Formats: sequence, C-alpha cells, structure tokens
Amino acid sequence: MPNVSKRGCEMPASPIRRLVPLADKAVARGLKLYRLNIGQPDVPTPPEAFEALKNIDRKVLEYSPSAGLLSLRQKLRQYYKRFNIDVDTDDIIVTCGGSEAVLFAFMACLDPGDEIIVPEPAYANYMAFAISAGAKIVTVPSSIDNGFELPPVEEFEKLITPRTKGILICNPNNPTGYLYTMKEMLQIRDLVLKYDLFLFSDEVYREFCYTGAPYISAFHLPGIEDKVVLIDSVSKRYNECGIRIGALITKHKELKANVMKFCQARLSPPLIGQIVAEASIDASPEYMLATYNEYVERRKFLVDRINKIPGCYTPIPMGAFYTVVRLPVDDADRFCRWCLEEFEYEGATVFMAPASGFYTTPGRGIDEVRMAYVLEKSELDHALTVLEEALKAYPGRKMA
Amino acid sequence: MPNVSKRGCEMPASPIRRLVPLADKAVARGLKLYRLNIGQPDVPTPPEAFEALKNIDRKVLEYSPSAGLLSLRQKLRQYYKRFNIDVDTDDIIVTCGGSEAVLFAFMACLDPGDEIIVPEPAYANYMAFAISAGAKIVTVPSSIDNGFELPPVEEFEKLITPRTKGILICNPNNPTGYLYTMKEMLQIRDLVLKYDLFLFSDEVYREFCYTGAPYISAFHLPGIEDKVVLIDSVSKRYNECGIRIGALITKHKELKANVMKFCQARLSPPLIGQIVAEASIDASPEYMLATYNEYVERRKFLVDRINKIPGCYTPIPMGAFYTVVRLPVDDADRFCRWCLEEFEYEGATVFMAPASGFYTTPGRGIDEVRMAYVLEKSELDHALTVLEEALKAYPGRKMA
Repeated sequence: MPNVSKRGCEMPASPIRRLVPLADKAVARGLKLYRLNIGQPDVPTPPEAFEALKNIDRKVLEYSPSAGLLSLRQKLRQYYKRFNIDVDTDDIIVTCGGSEAVLFAFMACLDPGDEIIVPEPAYANYMAFAISAGAKIVTVPSSIDNGFELPPVEEFEKLITPRTKGILICNPNNPTGYLYTMKEMLQIRDLVLKYDLFLFSDEVYREFCYTGAPYISAFHLPGIEDKVVLIDSVSKRYNECGIRIGALITKHKELKANVMKFCQARLSPPLIGQIVAEASIDASPEYMLATYNEYVERRKFLVDRINKIPGCYTPIPMGAFYTVVRLPVDDADRFCRWCLEEFEYEGATVFMAPASGFYTTPGRGIDEVRMAYVLEKSELDHALTVLEEALKAYPGRKMA
Repeated sequence: MPNVSKRGCEMPASPIRRLVPLADKAVARGLKLYRLNIGQPDVPTPPEAFEALKNIDRKVLEYSPSAGLLSLRQKLRQYYKRFNIDVDTDDIIVTCGGSEAVLFAFMACLDPGDEIIVPEPAYANYMAFAISAGAKIVTVPSSIDNGFELPPVEEFEKLITPRTKGILICNPNNPTGYLYTMKEMLQIRDLVLKYDLFLFSDEVYREFCYTGAPYISAFHLPGIEDKVVLIDSVSKRYNECGIRIGALITKHKELKANVMKFCQARLSPPLIGQIVAEASIDASPEYMLATYNEYVERRKFLVDRINKIPGCYTPIPMGAFYTVVRLPVDDADRFCRWCLEEFEYEGATVFMAPASGFYTTPGRGIDEVRMAYVLEKSELDHALTVLEEALKAYPGRKMA
C-alpha cells in the first residue's frame, strides 16, 4: 500500500477531536451533554440571512469570481469603515471561511522552513495550516497567571531568526478571551517594522469586546499598513459558521497577486454563502446588540460561577466567547476524558476542550481547559454544577 | 516590505486568466462575447436544488461535521452504486468542491519532492495544487494526432523514479474529452500495482459519456481498491458549480485518517451547498437526460462545424463538454488575445482557452485551444462563424 504523507502524519490530532467519539458515546448512553468544547454558538442566525436564502432567484448556481462577489466585497469595505479600518474593495479577498484565509495567507507568504511567532495558547488549527504550508510555528508563552498578557518584547526578540517571516495574533483571542492593549499592539508593530515581518491578525471576534477597552485592529497601527494580513470571518458575528465565508485583507500588492493564484486554483468561494453573508451585514443593530448582550451576561455568569468553585480559576476574558480555566486536576486531558467516559451527575456530563491542544510547549496548560460560553445561562448553570460535582468525584483531583 | 512566498510566485498564471481582463474590456467596448473558455454550463440547476434552498428550516446555519453531512454521504453512496462503484459511507469525505478534494489528496499523500505522473494536456489547476503541496507533476504526452489516447506503458515507466507516488487521470477528460478504454485503464492499473502507487482519478464528468463506450471508474479496476483516490464533484452534473461541493473517496484507511486531519483543520464543508447537493442527487431522470441530450447535440454540432473550417481540426470528444481544437495559427495564445483585443465580426468576438495552459512541456499545444460547449447551439453557431472570420483576418494565420 502506498504511504501517506509525513506532513499529514505530523499534523496533531487535537485533544478535542480525540474526545469527540467519547462525547458521541456519552450521548448514545442517554446522557445530557453540555458542550462547552466548541465555538458553535446557539444564537440564531439573523432573519436577513434566511430572507436572502428564500429570495435567491437564479436559474444557475454558477461560479462566483475567485475573489468573491463584488457586491459582498463592497459591503465588507463599508462594514470595516465602521471600525475605522480603511481598506479598498480590491484589498478584500473572499475566502471559504476564516480557515481558508489563514491557509492562503500562509501559502502565499511562507515557504517551507519559514517561521512565524505566535503567542500561546493559540487556536490549534493555526498549527495545521502551518504544517500544510511546511512552515514552523514558534510560540512565545503567555500565562493564565498574568491574564494572558503579552510577554515582554525581549521574549519575542529571542525567537527571531533569519527564517522569521511574521507574527500571528488573534485579537480578541481564542482561546483566552484576551484583548490586546494599545501598548502591546505598538510593541508588535515595532517588531514588525524592525524585522520587516508580516503581521497576521485574526480579528474574527471584533464584535465581542466587553470591557470598554478599545478593539485595536492591526490596520489601526500606523506605518505597517502594507505588512498586515487581516483574517476575518462572518461565522461568529452573525452565527453562521456553516456558510463558510471569510476574508483575507491585505494592501501588499504582490501578496494580493499571490493569494489570488491560490483563489483561482480553487475557482470560487461558496456562492450561496456569499449571498447569505452579504445580507447578514445588514443585520439590525437590535440583533447585533441582543447577541452582544447575551454574551455579556453569559460571560459574567460563567466567570463568577467558575471562580466560586474551590480550586478553579479563570481570568476575566475581555472579548470573544471563550475563557481558559485552571482546574484542580492532575491532567485536564485525562479529566475531560473521564467526564465523558466515567462520570455523570443527574443524567448529565460536560464536554470541555483540554487546553493542551492550544499549547505547543509540552506540559504547558496541563491543568487548564477552554470553555466556550455558547450556551444559555440556565444551561451554563447546569453545566457548571456538573463540573463542580465532577471535580469532587474525580480521582486525580489536586488538593489545595 | 516582507517577501511573498516563492511557492506562490512559481504558480503559473494560466493563459485563460491572463485573458480575463481583456475579455472584460471587450465586453465594456460593447462587444457580444461568446465564452467558450470555461466549463460554466448555461444549463439550469435542477428544481430540486432550489426547492431545498427554499425549504431550509433552521434557526442556526451551523458547522456541519468535518467529513460532511451523514445524509449526504449516504446518498452519495447510493449514487455511486448506480455506477457499480461500491464504497462505504465512511469512504466518502465531502469537500469544498472537487478542488479541495484534489488539494487534500495531494496534501495527504505527497510530501515535498514527491512526484505524480499525469497525461498532458491536463486540467491546469492540478499544477497549482501540486505546487501547494510542494510536489512535482511529471507529464506524459498525449497528442491530438492520435485523439489523445494514452501513450504506451513504456512512456510511463521511463518517468518513474523513487519519488513517484502516484498517477493522476481525469476520465472523461478535461480538456480533451477523451474517455479511457479498458485496455488503457488496465495498463494504468498494472503500473499502479507494480510500483505501489496511488491512482488519483478525477471522474467529475462521468455522467457525460457520449459514444456508447463504457465509463470505467478507477474503482472498477480489480486489485487496486486500496490505492484509488477518487475525486468527485456535483458541480458539473447538476450545473451547480457555485455551491462548492465535491468529495474525496478512498478505502485506504491511513489515508482517510490523514485527509480527515486537513478536513478538521478547515472545520466543515459548506452547509447550504451540502443541503442543495443532497437534493440534487434526486434530480429527475428527465432532467439528467435533457442535460445529457443537450450536450450530445452541442457536441455533434460543434465538432462538425469545426472540422469544416479550413485548417481546423478536432478529434471527436467522447465525454465531458470540452474539446481541443487545432487552429491554423502561429500561436494560439496570441490568436486568442488578438480575438479579444483587435477583432470583431458583426459586433461580436470569441473567448477561447489557449491550450498551452494545459501542457507543461514548452511549445506543446502551441496551435491548440480548448473549447467548452456550454452554450446553446445557436450561440455556438454564431461563435464559430466569428471564429471562422477571425481566422481569415488574423495576420498570423498559417497557410496549408
């Protein structure tokens, strides 16, 4: 039998995914399963999206242009203006989800052996896309102990080599919920300028900033406009993860041309998704606010409850809809697995993402999990009761 | 400014794409443009597809499973059975178009430096996906002079090196319309067995075989079931290129696991497209037959007309909806460009794909174009009248 690629074998199977079959089995056993493991919101997609679907009046569901529908790109341009992000329609390339934007950014910027620096913990799939491109992710550690703020600039500079081609941030952050401060963003800008790097900035959670602190886009940073590669997606802000519409935005002319070659090879982003996304940008301010307020409440509720459970700790997430939680356990991978396989409380159990999947440094995040607050408050409440009971019963509990 | 990737720079901009801006300009000048350049059928999408769109009754357009909706995969399995392709639901992985299936097949099978052998002329984007994976496409020539039949087995064997990992065919073929015979398929099978290779088989045009000769799937070949990677797409058969739904099908266990890692990294194929694709598989036999008959007529009409034009020649394509045509010109790239920039006949001109984009060997196909018969007969008629007049007026005409 012919051998498969080493590249594929090297790709880490994330700890969440290894748990999915166990979660399915728990459900099959009749357990109520609280899914805090994935950023799949339960909030409804806006009515404008469904309206657009019903009104599709075409004879042929044909290819769209490789860069995406012009009308969608124009609308996105207007959308970004609201956030003081001033880009041309031509700077916006529509992709199949934020995922394809990351893949194409790496493919078009990085050659095998090139390196990018990423604060960890980080979204696990960045690693998979880097492996696809043959590039190397080098992580700079941030820690739950200081709320996941960026480490000092020296920590970044220590990691820079002749192969360093960029820095990647996710802001607001998945998995930590951290929102970078102006001071931190300027620190990154200075590095980008000094070493002539790309700044890959994944800003798909920009609508979800909770503390009054400003959201600072990479495009707000003066002097590096041509070095920014912004990753965006409509998935989270309009609760339409399934339509697979994202965008890659850059003012770097050569990079645009390079990215377009990858876009042309795959012909076209999804047509119907683009129609839905375009309509969703017109979602009412009431809809957007209701979604926002829902997360504000859940966040407060979740964080308060967690920090009351003996031995648990989470910093207050400033954005997105995740938080990283330290648990009083020997090994969060083992604990999450145990919750799915061996534990139940009043016919229910809980599915969390072991944080080890967000770290590349072995051993880091060993007692941490990521929770997504994508469930209603009453569900979160039950979920945390189950967690509390699970922690009492778990044989690997660490005593204070 | 940071440099873009060499990989992207190496990716060839296909001659068709270089012509697109000129085609746009021709339209802007008010010319009627006959688009024979791309496989974008004008045939309507089946009513079942639009019905499914209207009936979507969901609150959230959520992620689907990374391998695709189970119901779609089950339906595809039944569909393949009609063609005596016996695969399990688990062997079918839904992708974002056939394009993603090719990309993931290469990513999961090939490492940088690995080689695959492809008969040329070949679909130009295979090259782009190979470059994405760092792999090398090695072409074995087929020629218009013998109707694009496969070269003898020795021509393949000459190209095999320790890095050869697979053979890629497209059957029925884009761009030539060639349909591989049983003898040719068995020849490929023997090579695959002898050298322990993958057989990548792109069979997206299987519904379009016109000569009574059988369509032979790679999965029909005994003894290599575990080495086949079938590429499929609903785009062409249901005239829904824009929904971006394809499939990668393999019985190779390790490969399945490897491909799934790439699928999981991009989270999910398009949800709405999957719903539409699933409904389209129920398209009525009348719809499928009407589409088929339409192409049968167009094909006969196109081939007859072309071969009557002095100096033009095309073999009779046996499948798909393309044919490669030899023109009496010095350089088909230049001629196609000239048609768009400098020529018009009764207010119209014609857009064809220079065949050079389908060859990797420099100079091959220099006087050939690919035509897609995706227009109505009356339109094809006009298009060919325009072509005939263009050939009379073109300064680089080759005399017999």
